[in-house]
Amino acid sequence: MKSVPGSLGTTTSIALRFGQVIFSSSSIFFMSLGVGFYSYTAFCFLVTIMGLVIPWSFTLAILDGYSILATFPVHQSGIFMVIIIGDSVLSFFTLAAASSTASLVDLLLKADVSFCPQRLCCRYQISAAMAFLSWCLLLISSLSNLWLLPWLDAD
Amino acid sequence: MKSVPGSLGTTTSIALRFGQVIFSSSSIFFMSLGVGFYSYTAFCFLVTIMGLVIPWSFTLAILDGYSILATFPVHQSGIFMVIIIGDSVLSFFTLAAASSTASLVDLLLKADVSFCPQRLCCRYQISAAMAFLSWCLLLISSLSNLWLLPWLDAD
Repeated sequence: MKSVPGSLGTTTSIALRFGQVIFSSSSIFFMSLGVGFYSYTAFCFLVTIMGLVIPWSFTLAILDGYSILATFPVHQSGIFMVIIIGDSVLSFFTLAAASSTASLVDLLLKADVSFCPQRLCCRYQISAAMAFLSWCLLLISSLSNLWLLPWLDAD
Repeated sequence: MKSVPGSLGTTTSIALRFGQVIFSSSSIFFMSLGVGFYSYTAFCFLVTIMGLVIPWSFTLAILDGYSILATFPVHQSGIFMVIIIGDSVLSFFTLAAASSTASLVDLLLKADVSFCPQRLCCRYQISAAMAFLSWCLLLISSLSNLWLLPWLDAD
């Protein structure tokens, strides 16, 4: 059985999953600090997607931990397919939400200072940056599991 | 040699590539109709990315056509890797640009009618929709070629 760093049941995977949880939580935290985020569709979209990434990544981190501690490697291609599709869909949504937020903050900063004070807009920028980092980690997780898929079928 | 519809050297691939060229050109066309697009970073980003997708997809459509007409199947995994990476990177950028444009148009429509007249904003919305369609086709091309990669190495 070939092992790919970052695929299900490896310590790298746990690190990636916890990274996703931390960055997504930070993104929601910085967005929710400004109470006016629900006025903009893109900001609401970001909060919704980050709210989906947190339980998804946390559940998979627990599955990774169980797989390592109980020395019970998960080799079913069905489980891998579900994880790859879930990771890919969430990574696309995360990228879309992060780009939407970034472009909106850029416009708000340009448009009018009273419309979005410097301090509030800075928080939104940090939130978008955290979402981008979360996207990177989701993509790495997805690609690692995808890379292992042909070997699972071959076994 | 396994053949996957949509992978390099198939008629489906030519259809996908021409679809990408048509949707990207439409996206640029509808964006450029409003002369004020260069005032917004997200709109400039969309035009730049669509301007990269057009020559990329057109070149690959020609390669597909040559491969079919000259009955010279391209089986080198190196060429496939370049195409997969190119398609993936362009699809990520296209998704980011389309989401940025969509969120920006949403805000402009809400903010002020004089800031973005209904007719102009409608064109920007069509442009974003065309970019989303272009992203879908790029993703299909990328996944079709990726699916074929393990069989290329096995041959």
